Amino acid sequence: MIRRDFLRTGGLALLGASLTSAIEPTRNLLSGAEEKVAGTAKNVIFLVSDGMSNGTLTMANLLSERMYGRESKWISLYQENKVVRAFMDTASANAMVTDSAASSSAWGGGVRVNNGKLNVNADGSYNTPILQKFKNAGKKVGCVTTVPITHATPAGFCITNNSRGEQSEIALQYLPLRFDVMMGGGDKYFNPSKRSDKQDVYEEFEKAGYQLAKTKAQMLELDHKKPILGVFDEDALPFSVDYAHDKNLRNQVPTLAEMTVKAIDLMKDHTDGFVLQVEGGKVDWAAHSNDTPGLLFDQLAFDLAVEKAIEFAEKDQNTLVIITTDHGNGNPGLFGDHNSNQKFDLLQKFKHSNDWVLNAIKPNFSHASVIELINNAQGYTISNEQAKGLLTHYTTSDTKLPFELLGKIQADYTSIGWGSMEHSADYVELAAYGPGSTLMKPFVRNTELHNLMLNATGVNTH
Amino acid sequence: MIRRDFLRTGGLALLGASLTSAIEPTRNLLSGAEEKVAGTAKNVIFLVSDGMSNGTLTMANLLSERMYGRESKWISLYQENKVVRAFMDTASANAMVTDSAASSSAWGGGVRVNNGKLNVNADGSYNTPILQKFKNAGKKVGCVTTVPITHATPAGFCITNNSRGEQSEIALQYLPLRFDVMMGGGDKYFNPSKRSDKQDVYEEFEKAGYQLAKTKAQMLELDHKKPILGVFDEDALPFSVDYAHDKNLRNQVPTLAEMTVKAIDLMKDHTDGFVLQVEGGKVDWAAHSNDTPGLLFDQLAFDLAVEKAIEFAEKDQNTLVIITTDHGNGNPGLFGDHNSNQKFDLLQKFKHSNDWVLNAIKPNFSHASVIELINNAQGYTISNEQAKGLLTHYTTSDTKLPFELLGKIQADYTSIGWGSMEHSADYVELAAYGPGSTLMKPFVRNTELHNLMLNATGVNTH
Repeated sequence: MIRRDFLRTGGLALLGASLTSAIEPTRNLLSGAEEKVAGTAKNVIFLVSDGMSNGTLTMANLLSERMYGRESKWISLYQENKVVRAFMDTASANAMVTDSAASSSAWGGGVRVNNGKLNVNADGSYNTPILQKFKNAGKKVGCVTTVPITHATPAGFCITNNSRGEQSEIALQYLPLRFDVMMGGGDKYFNPSKRSDKQDVYEEFEKAGYQLAKTKAQMLELDHKKPILGVFDEDALPFSVDYAHDKNLRNQVPTLAEMTVKAIDLMKDHTDGFVLQVEGGKVDWAAHSNDTPGLLFDQLAFDLAVEKAIEFAEKDQNTLVIITTDHGNGNPGLFGDHNSNQKFDLLQKFKHSNDWVLNAIKPNFSHASVIELINNAQGYTISNEQAKGLLTHYTTSDTKLPFELLGKIQADYTSIGWGSMEHSADYVELAAYGPGSTLMKPFVRNTELHNLMLNATGVNTH
Repeated sequence: MIRRDFLRTGGLALLGASLTSAIEPTRNLLSGAEEKVAGTAKNVIFLVSDGMSNGTLTMANLLSERMYGRESKWISLYQENKVVRAFMDTASANAMVTDSAASSSAWGGGVRVNNGKLNVNADGSYNTPILQKFKNAGKKVGCVTTVPITHATPAGFCITNNSRGEQSEIALQYLPLRFDVMMGGGDKYFNPSKRSDKQDVYEEFEKAGYQLAKTKAQMLELDHKKPILGVFDEDALPFSVDYAHDKNLRNQVPTLAEMTVKAIDLMKDHTDGFVLQVEGGKVDWAAHSNDTPGLLFDQLAFDLAVEKAIEFAEKDQNTLVIITTDHGNGNPGLFGDHNSNQKFDLLQKFKHSNDWVLNAIKPNFSHASVIELINNAQGYTISNEQAKGLLTHYTTSDTKLPFELLGKIQADYTSIGWGSMEHSADYVELAAYGPGSTLMKPFVRNTELHNLMLNATGVNTH
């Protein structure tokens, strides 16, 4: 304790590295750097792979190595010694297993709230979302995501609401904030023909001085003179594995990495810097459906956004990059089997997500057509019995698609299993790059990232 | 690259900490410490929670916090900034999903071998196990475990064998090594009445100058004048949750922490130092059975051994402590549920493992007696239908106990689910304390720990 206080006084800078004796724990040395880094970051890019269990990060890296011959960017940052790592406790105010609203609020408002709430405390009081703080401090701010831009993770950085489900209301809450870049899915929360109140929220944004983009081409043409609203899908954007095998989608919809590059480009020349949240939101949606191809290719698409963020930060030298997840989900794993290497490699042939497959099956399909469809989309041949099991869900009154069953069937061919279709309490992986990254302790509560971002940028110092 | 080479020359020691600019990645600074720490550790304690997935580490800490009001020792080392953390790739030579023989061989021999092998390469050549190297260098060496002392994890540090299953042979292979402390279970591999060759391996050890211990009391009386063989159970030692509720077991069998303290005590005064492997082996066995109470209370028992090792190392100041696992297993998690906090807290009332419960059920039990047994042992009331399902396994020709079914039934009461009954490829948690710990990179292959231990102690330098 005494030693740490000494370091906090800034005394370390006066001393040679010989101060640190051989048995001195490494991290104590890092703590001493605090005085030097607070206030030194001009920009922050906060990247969230939503619902990423440890196995998701691991398997995406293994897939990248075996399919493309290179590590994922995230893992390469560890291998190249470029980031500070931490373990994060993701609990919410009322549960060890958080939801995405409470977890984004923990980062966004600096206070744990109950599941389902966006920066609203149990007593009804509010916590100011971090992008409002940064905007007030003169920075440009924005969010890009693969799910609706009104969804929990971006919303937790932007607004307060008693219920994350009120996405039509959240779309309107964004309006007066005049944030600089907001891009993702969620047309149904903006489009007058889809909103129950018939309000044309797009028109409201245009009146308020926004530029709109509804296609990738429109997005690429945007300039930084006006704030941007980009909405590229009815609900969430397509899964990356489906996107990769559909030319129309590729022409129409930007990838997360493309949105990230554009958002950085639009904000990077601002004198007072910028803060951007980037969410790979469908990693979580895939996990809720035990959709292994959806999961792993979306994790790799998230990883490309990480690569773009780091590329910028390495050139810029003034950008703190935080890479993490809000909670585990499903705890998938590549599990032991006499043949698990080969089974895992089958994933490289997958053209479509389980979501795509199950939406393509129709109640009048024969067993043979189900078998053929799955063989074409995912490269393995299920049995008649298994096809029958899947079809049962279409011919009964059950309106839910048989995601759980397909996940279980698929496990025999991929050796990848799932523990649940829900979030987990697992502590999660966290990496920080650039100025302010040494503020991070090896074990953090999710709420600590709120002040870390403020401290790193010096926004709390006035 | 250039910068790192410069650091490797030892130039850092000449420079002040001001060398490290605010945006300098933290870990590069650590790399510079290499020259200063190699050869500075006198002792090594290597602690393995076998088969520990990320969720196991997380849930053990949550259980400790909620049951005892304190963090696990492992997590407290992160919170107190006392260790260097890394992420470890646990693959074997022929599989992304390793077994315990190949993973212990990776550490023990420094080379990845195929699953099932103990330091034997695909071409039939051998790698010298690390405890033989340390013994030859003049150190005292030993292993303590909660599974047979002839099991894969200790064996991988001690001997070479084409097959991990040859435990009767491995017991004999230990004899000529004259290692200083070997303690765990496995009477059936030493006892003439249980070995197929009727050889009295205990007698052989005594003739070779060993002291024997078969009870906790005998263990406590041992001194350091002669090497020690302690064998406390027929096969593995009991699960900690069963042990805690059985006075006879507590009198008869030492805990992992007690064995660890004794082993350190027996070796600590040796002039040239000691190297000790400590294995919480039944964490893995519990995971293979989806036995949640077996798992979490054994993880906490392992954590007590960690606490004892760190207590010694903090006083001693010359001991490198490595804390890790050899691979994930089952990827359990506390999963979201409207009531998961309360369900998780039910674990605090558990008196027995699933292993104990399923061995206590007999084919002639009524549904009511199964329900009562589980209620008494684990504090929840299963349905008649569920009792019937369990009993089916006892009345059919199926000789396997219904571990998977009980795990699934129990998940409704604990909110803890499992993805598999097999090992996973997940990258795993690794922590290092003390001299040599800064040699550790943030992402390591399991094989790197072999040279890290040798470098830290300077044993490779002659």
